[in-house]
Amino acid sequence: MKTLVICSGGMDSVALAYLIKKERELTRLVSFDYGQRHKNELQYAANVSKELQVPHSIIDISNISKYLSGSALTDDIDVPDGHYAEENMKTTVVPNRNAIMLSIAFGVAAGEKSSAVAAAVHAGDHFIYPDCRPEFVDSFRTMQNCALEGVWDVDLYAPFVNISKADIAKIGYDLGVKFENTWSCYKGGKIHCGRCGTCVERQEAMHLANIKDETKYEDPNYWKEKVREEKFNE
Amino acid sequence: MKTLVICSGGMDSVALAYLIKKERELTRLVSFDYGQRHKNELQYAANVSKELQVPHSIIDISNISKYLSGSALTDDIDVPDGHYAEENMKTTVVPNRNAIMLSIAFGVAAGEKSSAVAAAVHAGDHFIYPDCRPEFVDSFRTMQNCALEGVWDVDLYAPFVNISKADIAKIGYDLGVKFENTWSCYKGGKIHCGRCGTCVERQEAMHLANIKDETKYEDPNYWKEKVREEKFNE
Repeated sequence: MKTLVICSGGMDSVALAYLIKKERELTRLVSFDYGQRHKNELQYAANVSKELQVPHSIIDISNISKYLSGSALTDDIDVPDGHYAEENMKTTVVPNRNAIMLSIAFGVAAGEKSSAVAAAVHAGDHFIYPDCRPEFVDSFRTMQNCALEGVWDVDLYAPFVNISKADIAKIGYDLGVKFENTWSCYKGGKIHCGRCGTCVERQEAMHLANIKDETKYEDPNYWKEKVREEKFNE
Repeated sequence: MKTLVICSGGMDSVALAYLIKKERELTRLVSFDYGQRHKNELQYAANVSKELQVPHSIIDISNISKYLSGSALTDDIDVPDGHYAEENMKTTVVPNRNAIMLSIAFGVAAGEKSSAVAAAVHAGDHFIYPDCRPEFVDSFRTMQNCALEGVWDVDLYAPFVNISKADIAKIGYDLGVKFENTWSCYKGGKIHCGRCGTCVERQEAMHLANIKDETKYEDPNYWKEKVREEKFNE
């Protein structure tokens, strides 16, 4: 089944790309430049497309983002440190980002006559992102069934929607993903900061999955000392 | 209720803008530059925003359109003549265009804390555009309720979804819309061609609504002689 993968270059969507490459006919990786303050993740996605020998489309939606105010990912609000699921991480929400990216991906899929769009939304994001929940995935699929009826059928495939980031890490590891070749950090450094929400979540996922984390962090002790203590009381 | 209007500069969305200006708090007109071969309609939308004294946002999604192949509106396929609802008008379908434009508009609405997005989808488009049907409108609203839950509630307002273009023309006429200041034609001339699907539909709507059509057409007789004959047997 011809399937395109929305791939940010992060752990989850890279694991998904490897999964689709194994299970289905992977047609392309689609990434979005939504004006994020750094482009590191886009380069990581480009590297994955080379590894998997599929085309990579980077779709520039940065001129849309200026209308979607209130997000620390594109505006001048400081990116908060700490665990991803905490209240202050709500500042990383870009209004309606998933619906926008998915609807564009569905247009691309219809254009190339692919039968599915695969997206790496997962259970760990449910707490803060309403558009990562199973209800959202189901309602989006239903909407697209209506929108493209009689034009070209495209399904939404979200195999990670009910599993954790640690589960995804295990799946990716078994598929041969080298997670040091993926990018999570929300800050714009040359290496992962180790302190922002996605860096903390990344370290926690690999810890829970018993995978040795080969990622280089600017602050490798923040998670170990502060968050791990709080969360696991170790 | 703060409401933004997706306005192409055509008859229907201009009538909708006037309706919202009267009934609600109109916050802005949003138009999309999706790489259409002519930009006439965008200028007409800009003129309406001045008339109604509201901001106008033209969002450039033309770099997305190159991935959405198969459409005569953006590709090099000839725009067909004839009635809008005919089979050959299917070449004017841009895959997933409404879902893409609506999801962006919902992001803009959430960003500016508006409570509704108003769209001029109407019953006359049901035949060829799956994403103009009431089922699509309902499923899109449900999807957005999920996507923005806990972020900011935005409703989809589509008051024309069950009425005809002639009905819309009547409503617009009563609200003071001057339809010669709206743009329908799919071709890129200085004045309306009079022959393409939207020009034919436009003339038919005003005829059925008993409105004197002040629009200048390159070929003012095409509809009168050919299509009207066929359709009304006059």
